[in-house]
Amino acid sequence: MSVTVVGSIAFDAVRTPFDERQRMLGGSAVHFALAASFFADVHVVGPVGDDFSQSEYEVLHARGVDTADIERVPGGRTFFWRGHYDYDLNVAHTDETQLNVFADFAPKLSPASRDCDVLFLANIQPDLQRSVRRQSNARFVAMDSMNLWIDTARDALRAAIAEVDCLLLNDAELRMLTGEPSLPRAAREVMRWGPSHVVAKQGEYGAALFAGDGFFALPAFPLETVLDPTGAGDSFAGGFLGYLAAHNAGSPSEDVLRRAMAYGTALASFNVEEFGTERMQRLSPDEITDRVAELRRMTTFVDVPVALRG
Amino acid sequence: MSVTVVGSIAFDAVRTPFDERQRMLGGSAVHFALAASFFADVHVVGPVGDDFSQSEYEVLHARGVDTADIERVPGGRTFFWRGHYDYDLNVAHTDETQLNVFADFAPKLSPASRDCDVLFLANIQPDLQRSVRRQSNARFVAMDSMNLWIDTARDALRAAIAEVDCLLLNDAELRMLTGEPSLPRAAREVMRWGPSHVVAKQGEYGAALFAGDGFFALPAFPLETVLDPTGAGDSFAGGFLGYLAAHNAGSPSEDVLRRAMAYGTALASFNVEEFGTERMQRLSPDEITDRVAELRRMTTFVDVPVALRG
Repeated sequence: MSVTVVGSIAFDAVRTPFDERQRMLGGSAVHFALAASFFADVHVVGPVGDDFSQSEYEVLHARGVDTADIERVPGGRTFFWRGHYDYDLNVAHTDETQLNVFADFAPKLSPASRDCDVLFLANIQPDLQRSVRRQSNARFVAMDSMNLWIDTARDALRAAIAEVDCLLLNDAELRMLTGEPSLPRAAREVMRWGPSHVVAKQGEYGAALFAGDGFFALPAFPLETVLDPTGAGDSFAGGFLGYLAAHNAGSPSEDVLRRAMAYGTALASFNVEEFGTERMQRLSPDEITDRVAELRRMTTFVDVPVALRG
Repeated sequence: MSVTVVGSIAFDAVRTPFDERQRMLGGSAVHFALAASFFADVHVVGPVGDDFSQSEYEVLHARGVDTADIERVPGGRTFFWRGHYDYDLNVAHTDETQLNVFADFAPKLSPASRDCDVLFLANIQPDLQRSVRRQSNARFVAMDSMNLWIDTARDALRAAIAEVDCLLLNDAELRMLTGEPSLPRAAREVMRWGPSHVVAKQGEYGAALFAGDGFFALPAFPLETVLDPTGAGDSFAGGFLGYLAAHNAGSPSEDVLRRAMAYGTALASFNVEEFGTERMQRLSPDEITDRVAELRRMTTFVDVPVALRG
């Protein structure tokens, strides 16, 4: 029961209509790892600089995350992202990106990271994703990506997608990637390239899963207040793939996949309740269990026979 | 078990990336009536011109819809809408609107239309909606609206909303109406104005219901091909309110409301499979029942106890 994640480890500066933070722990691998840590052993692979201090490591260690494959680059600085959200919290506006140690990142997996049940290739350059995928013995490999790589590295991205079991992508990006305005058709097209599973992330509308001929969709958990949407997709992936890692990741049943979607949805909803990793750091298993149960109540209807008029 | 709908009866010209039609039967009251006719007696209230011929009446009569309150204006022409959709089928672009007989429409309800279980005030000028609402003895009154009235007749719209049991509105318009970026907060705000129920229509993402403290959401039925989205919201309303009319409309239980959402979702999905009313004209009760069952399978997950790591 182990998950390895390769992705960014970052300092983020985030401003929303409600508040702001000048420098906080972030990055896709971090958001993913905290969410997945409720289900399985988690190994994080990614580079940091000298400015990544003991207190940052502590956040991950407190959740039992293995940081042995976090590569500390002497003299380097950690990846930095500055962004803001306006009232439409679905749209992140990037104000500044400093790749720093990420510019020369060449991921190397230790044996423990290699022999995981599930591997998540968070949003990084597709050739890097492929090189990691080839080092891994995972039974289930999933990846994320973004519009940047669709625009600038489409062939590399297609090659990376061909080698994974599951693509998680925003629904607009799925359409962009395939040129298919219909989401079901876009998902089927991606499945012809290789993946047996496609998860369309839909922000505040939730997420949809395409697996074989099957379809499953869940709304996002309704929150009156979203403080910071940064990392929602990665904490969704952490809940989703963490759950799979703990439940026969090699060939997950339809039932397991659906529950995994529910846990992903729950984890994402906690992540956005506060800035950065603030909420996740004090999240408890009972809160997760309760939220999944509530989500189930919010999405269930009982069908009874009805006499329709012909 | 009867529903009255007041709204537009129209000829539509529609172009999509797939095909086009120069003149076909349309209008919110028509799309609503065809959908609701599977559940209850339907009375349509609205004006038409001399150009509204027997074949148009036939479409409604074939589904048992009462057209006695369709007011035929001698020398007048029927409301006409021309629009198109680009690849994003969620956005309708209006190219031409001819109000024609709708310009001087003063709705008058016959006793049969007045004494209905459910009244639907489709998207028309809010003062007209209020005048109809006051003529009706319905046990449950719902209304739709649009950005035009939020911009140009906000006070009248607020007054109309205050007198209904249920507001159905696109989610972007709910935000616009209330100035609340959070959908749950926007819905709660509307409920403070009067309605006990708010349905947020979310296009391809489905619909969400706020009722008391309760929340329920359903995705849209996934379709590989959407030929013409015109009327999707009204056929949703027809399925939703038709179901309520047939099941204790006066004080619907949470279970009944959820099933009504499912039937609304199913009816909307059929409506958009073909142009105008083409699909609805040959829809069968079994197809509806099957689609609701399929929708249930697509949205159900079973929660089982899981050992989370603290």
